[in-house]
Amino acid sequence: MASSKAPISVAVIGVGLVGSAFLKQLALPALAPHVRLVYASSSKRELYSASGIQASELSNSTAAPSLDGLLQRLTALGGRAVVVDNTSDERVAQFYPKFLNAGISVVTPNKKAFSGPLALYQQIVSAPPPARALHESTVGAGLPIIQTLNDLVQTADKVLRIEGVLSGTLSYIFNEFSPAANASSAPPFSQIVKEAREKGYTEPHPADDLSGSDVARKLTILSRLVPELVTALPEGYLSVSVSSLVPDALKDIKTGDEFVQRLPEFDEYFSGLRSEAEKEGKVLRYVGVVDVEKGVVRAALEKYSATHAFATALGGSDNIIAFHTQRYSPRPLLVQGAGAGADVTAMGVMSDLLKLLR
Amino acid sequence: MASSKAPISVAVIGVGLVGSAFLKQLALPALAPHVRLVYASSSKRELYSASGIQASELSNSTAAPSLDGLLQRLTALGGRAVVVDNTSDERVAQFYPKFLNAGISVVTPNKKAFSGPLALYQQIVSAPPPARALHESTVGAGLPIIQTLNDLVQTADKVLRIEGVLSGTLSYIFNEFSPAANASSAPPFSQIVKEAREKGYTEPHPADDLSGSDVARKLTILSRLVPELVTALPEGYLSVSVSSLVPDALKDIKTGDEFVQRLPEFDEYFSGLRSEAEKEGKVLRYVGVVDVEKGVVRAALEKYSATHAFATALGGSDNIIAFHTQRYSPRPLLVQGAGAGADVTAMGVMSDLLKLLR
Repeated sequence: MASSKAPISVAVIGVGLVGSAFLKQLALPALAPHVRLVYASSSKRELYSASGIQASELSNSTAAPSLDGLLQRLTALGGRAVVVDNTSDERVAQFYPKFLNAGISVVTPNKKAFSGPLALYQQIVSAPPPARALHESTVGAGLPIIQTLNDLVQTADKVLRIEGVLSGTLSYIFNEFSPAANASSAPPFSQIVKEAREKGYTEPHPADDLSGSDVARKLTILSRLVPELVTALPEGYLSVSVSSLVPDALKDIKTGDEFVQRLPEFDEYFSGLRSEAEKEGKVLRYVGVVDVEKGVVRAALEKYSATHAFATALGGSDNIIAFHTQRYSPRPLLVQGAGAGADVTAMGVMSDLLKLLR
Repeated sequence: MASSKAPISVAVIGVGLVGSAFLKQLALPALAPHVRLVYASSSKRELYSASGIQASELSNSTAAPSLDGLLQRLTALGGRAVVVDNTSDERVAQFYPKFLNAGISVVTPNKKAFSGPLALYQQIVSAPPPARALHESTVGAGLPIIQTLNDLVQTADKVLRIEGVLSGTLSYIFNEFSPAANASSAPPFSQIVKEAREKGYTEPHPADDLSGSDVARKLTILSRLVPELVTALPEGYLSVSVSSLVPDALKDIKTGDEFVQRLPEFDEYFSGLRSEAEKEGKVLRYVGVVDVEKGVVRAALEKYSATHAFATALGGSDNIIAFHTQRYSPRPLLVQGAGAGADVTAMGVMSDLLKLLR
């Protein structure tokens, strides 16, 4: 991280779980000569100091945060600056072009800007250098996925297919529900979802995970890095072919509590899918697939041989992603590991910031 | 790769298999505004032009290459410059400090400088910025291994253990010799080595692979990126604890031909090891281990459960590497894929060059 340049001004939007973990990493002594934390905000308040603030001061903040105000301050400050958006806020995402056009880089785990309408995405990627928008942690948290795909593409490999288990929540659920051995003695589907929710592995309303929309967002982000597919999903994740796991009859249920209460009605349906797979020597995994040759991007529950890496190698809430390319063929390049959690997400954010420092 | 800067001057030493693949990637139209190939050399000749040369001109070169001459030329040229060392030449490796101290970056798959004596290594890593020595492709070729380990360390994760199959050749040999199922019907050890040699998977003299020294070099490179172990291997790969697979009786055999001819004498020994493993439900894999807590760095033939990723997930000449860290725990961060070959090695080199361009 050696750099002969003046420190970069860092503005952090969002100091929740990921934001706090990020601030802890930002406070490393080795980074001190290279970064200056000038701004931090939660959803309700903000704190700014041109000469740098301490993370411990955050509780002193009082003013309501303002993106326009932040832009003005960073512009007035001059020098290199980066906004670290640790929210999942669409309003912040829509503001990225203004930061970038003012020469301010953006680093974020927020998927909204990269998985939404193509127009916003194109504004972001066409912003004039040296400002850059980096988002390694939008897919697989700290796992090297975006960087690896970019390296493949920029060194002129040809991506044929990307396939992976991209949701930590759905990884956990199907690793438990459909293990490679003795699947029929695993608990019913609803019970696994209920327990996952109690452990905090799911969103408060599990339908937000089971709908597949998080996977669709990640697939959109990956697809747009593949030259042949940059414009293939004009409406972003809404253009992805998604098979939702939410039963039709439960679509309109408003609360997570009611949802898990009703889910047992569909245990027989899910067990049936599992038995079918088992008869073929297969397991169920909820995967995302980007098939470049067929131009198909889909999120769906699929069957994999019990000897496939998605069946044998996965555990916990691991993500796994396989890049099948001309160069990595017939065997893919694989990356695997925890794909969710504050520390690993903050690591992805910080590794992007380190790229800006180098 | 957008950059507002003047193009970087690129000098390529070594235009063999990897060098040629690299030059092909360097000629991509998207790179043209950002790079200027000013120099290329084989072991016998060199070609230089301040205004840029075409890869097709390389056959016109006549003069003998000179590192001192190259240093003078690049210094006279001014501006940003990078030397791409695609050789495995120790003499070139020893010259890196001179390039770096003159502000010229180095990018290379050449393991020599990073796995030899600590003194040379320290000269290289302490060179003044902005010159940098990047070497992603020294371990796992194009796989994101060095970058991932650097990201873990620089974001203050604590590395506990690194474990992997780091030699494509030894991966192939043991994937064939000791498969997860029906190991006893696999061919004898000597036959697999002989076939691997015929396919060009081994060095001309297979003892160069079976000795484990290539794995020891890679382990040295990885260890030096872990803060606790930077100085643990003063003599580089010679300080690593290595279990060689070369039978004592064959140690002094000079030619690869004679070596493979004599190897059948030891088939019984290797089959014995395999049977022992099989009785325990295990397979044999030649692995590298960096155990940070115990301060042990070793390359050895070890036994792994037939359900372990090293047994089930590997195929062909795949590399696999598991980073066990405080953050990625109890399940590691895994990277897997082809770890040798000109195209994937050149990709690792090029991805380092792209880092310098950004």
